[in-house]
Parts: sequence; structure tokens; C-alpha cells
Amino acid sequence: MTGPAVAAPDAVTYDAIQQFYAGHMQAIDRGDVDTWLDTFTADATIANNTRPEPARGRDTIARVARRLVDEAAGRGVVHRHWTGMLQVARQPDGTVRATSYAFVVEAPASAAPVLWRSTVCVDVLVHEDGRWRIRQRNVTHDDVA
Amino acid sequence: MTGPAVAAPDAVTYDAIQQFYAGHMQAIDRGDVDTWLDTFTADATIANNTRPEPARGRDTIARVARRLVDEAAGRGVVHRHWTGMLQVARQPDGTVRATSYAFVVEAPASAAPVLWRSTVCVDVLVHEDGRWRIRQRNVTHDDVA
Amino acid sequence: MTGPAVAAPDAVTYDAIQQFYAGHMQAIDRGDVDTWLDTFTADATIANNTRPEPARGRDTIARVARRLVDEAAGRGVVHRHWTGMLQVARQPDGTVRATSYAFVVEAPASAAPVLWRSTVCVDVLVHEDGRWRIRQRNVTHDDVA
Repeated sequence: MTGPAVAAPDAVTYDAIQQFYAGHMQAIDRGDVDTWLDTFTADATIANNTRPEPARGRDTIARVARRLVDEAAGRGVVHRHWTGMLQVARQPDGTVRATSYAFVVEAPASAAPVLWRSTVCVDVLVHEDGRWRIRQRNVTHDDVA
Repeated sequence: MTGPAVAAPDAVTYDAIQQFYAGHMQAIDRGDVDTWLDTFTADATIANNTRPEPARGRDTIARVARRLVDEAAGRGVVHRHWTGMLQVARQPDGTVRATSYAFVVEAPASAAPVLWRSTVCVDVLVHEDGRWRIRQRNVTHDDVA
Repeated sequence: MTGPAVAAPDAVTYDAIQQFYAGHMQAIDRGDVDTWLDTFTADATIANNTRPEPARGRDTIARVARRLVDEAAGRGVVHRHWTGMLQVARQPDGTVRATSYAFVVEAPASAAPVLWRSTVCVDVLVHEDGRWRIRQRNVTHDDVA
């Protein structure tokens, strides 16, 4: 209805992608970087409008992830990544393009939670080894003009 | 389980309505009023507990939408509309009644995002021209007694 | 992909559980405690990392729920419970284990809404009398170390 004219996913795929994001985000939020890394392909890239260059490959992605997990732990806060408003489109090459909103709730110990980040996340997902994995991620932070 | 005794939707419909809202909200949030308007029927109405009278018809709805988009741009903020807690019910006349929560995240440039609005949204959706469209919307703002 | 090696749900179940939570949360948020109670089994338990002992059985759960509804009304606020990032797993005994994030938006009269609580919610759901019900709930508040 909006966006490029690609095939709508079947219901099984739509639900599978929703569950994929749930597992993906719950993994990083509990600090389980290894499980989270396994939701990316080996050659995955993450681009981001706050960085000049994308992070390329699981090793680089792992380094960034461990730093963010350590920073949150050091500040004594829990992060909860939520995705929503998910649009899933099957592309001619068999990959899936998933466009969603994502925000991060930051929950300090002994204080009310706050919104920490608001972003739009566009992923290209591939199905390999019987699971979905992210090959390409493009994050746009809403607070960066 | 709650609400009127109407038929539960099949999984295809439930997912289609979820994707409908994703496209609908992403359109207005990127300021694409034309795409957003096409998610309403020509005779659509939007009622709201902050206004005495509903907005009637695409022309009126368009005027209100363009004003809201311009106001957000003028204030230098991005709005992200999220819907969730979606209940979908097929009605005897073939329309769908969709009840959901909706909030709006306001993301200023260079500052943390905040919650801007919290509402309950009840839509009557019809299927026409091969897509879902909103015929009737009823929004209840939580901050209005 | 993450979590225990249990069967993924079919799409019908995943959507049914999403709708279940929508009805469950909308019931408590509009203060309809009776409808909300009917989404628990008679012997349900709710455990919570802010309390030493779980609440056991519908009567105890009802007492706690009515107190919370009355407190919100007394303070003149509306609460909106959102769940998301839902993972659903069929267990060998036929029950469903549903792990989700949940936050509560607090909407005061005449002021912007705020995040009030952020939690992780693990439920065991059973299908009885033609509907899903919660047999066991385990809530972890993010602000409790």
C-alpha cells in the first residue's frame, strides 16, 4: 500500500519476522551478545546516520555491541529495545525487507524508565541455516537532522 | 473474550491489518500526506474527544493532516505514531473493527525523545480496490477527562 | 532461535496470543476487573520481583487488581499496558510459554503521558473453555536490581 511494489508476505513469514525481532532484541538486552551476533550473517553491515562508515562483519559488530552492553551495565541501567509498525516485503531475490520503528527504553535502578532513543530501522533479512538473519541494517536516529 | 461477540479474524487478516497500520503511520510520520490520505475512504470521518465535531471527508482530513505535519516540521520535531494491543473483529457486514492503543513519540533534534500523546483508536475498516481503508475513526485522548 | 528448544507456534496461535494480550490489557486499563480476571485460570499465580511471595488464586489476584485500579483512579491517571517483543513457544504439555516486554504508560489529565513501568513478563498459558488463560505469570520489574 505504501512503499515499493513488492510481494506481501504470507502470514507465516510475517509472524516469523515478528518473533525474530523479539528474540533478537531480547538477546542484546540481556547482554547475550553471542546469541545476538548469530542473528546476523557473517558479512553483515550496520549503517547508522550517527557514524560516517557502516560497521562491517560480525567481528566489528561484536566489538560495538560489547561496548554498548558494558556501558549500560556501567551506568546501572537496563535497555529494552522495542520494534513495531513492522512492514515486511518479499523481494525478487528471496530476501525480506523489513522496515520498522524502534525505540529504546532506559530503565535505571530505582527510578522511572525513560525513552532513550527513537529510530527507524530498515533490515534486509536472509533465510539461512533454517533461520532468519540480518544481512544489512540501516538505522536512522530521529534526533539527528 | 472482551468486547462484542463478533467473529475472530483469520491470521491472514490480522497480519494484514497490522501491516496496514504500519504503512498508514509511516506515511504520515514522513509527511507523505497523499499516501496517508489514500488509506481512508472518500467519505471517511475522524472523531476525537478534543473536538466537538468529527472531520468529514478526505478534503477536511487532508487539511488537518497538512497542518499537523507543518506544525511538527516548524517545531523541528519528528513524530512517530505507534499502534499496539490490536484487537480485530470481523463484523456481520464484512467490515473490520480494529481497536488499538496508539501513542506518539516526539523526537526533537539533539534531545531525547518523549511521549507526546496516548490514545485509544477505534477504526472501522473496509476492503476496497484491493486494500484496506479506514471509513470511520474514533480517537480518545487519554489526557482529556 | 533464542531460548529453549521448543516448537515454534503456528501463525494462528501467534496471532491468537497477540489478540489475547490486547484484550487482557485493555480490560484492566478500562477498570473491567471481572473480564480481566477471566483471563486467568482459577488457580493462577502471579510472581513479581517486588514481592516476596506470589499472589495465588483469582481471589487474591482480584484484590490486588482492584486496589491498583482504585489507586490509579484516585490519582486521576489512566494506565495503558503495552506488551511487545512477544516470543511464543509451544511446550510438550500443550501449554504455551509467552515471553514479552511490557511497559505501562501513565496518562495524567491535562499533561503529557510518561513511562511508568518497564518489565519483562513470562506467562504460561493454557487453552480451556475455548479461550486462552494465564496459569502462571512471572513479572520482572526493570527498576529492581
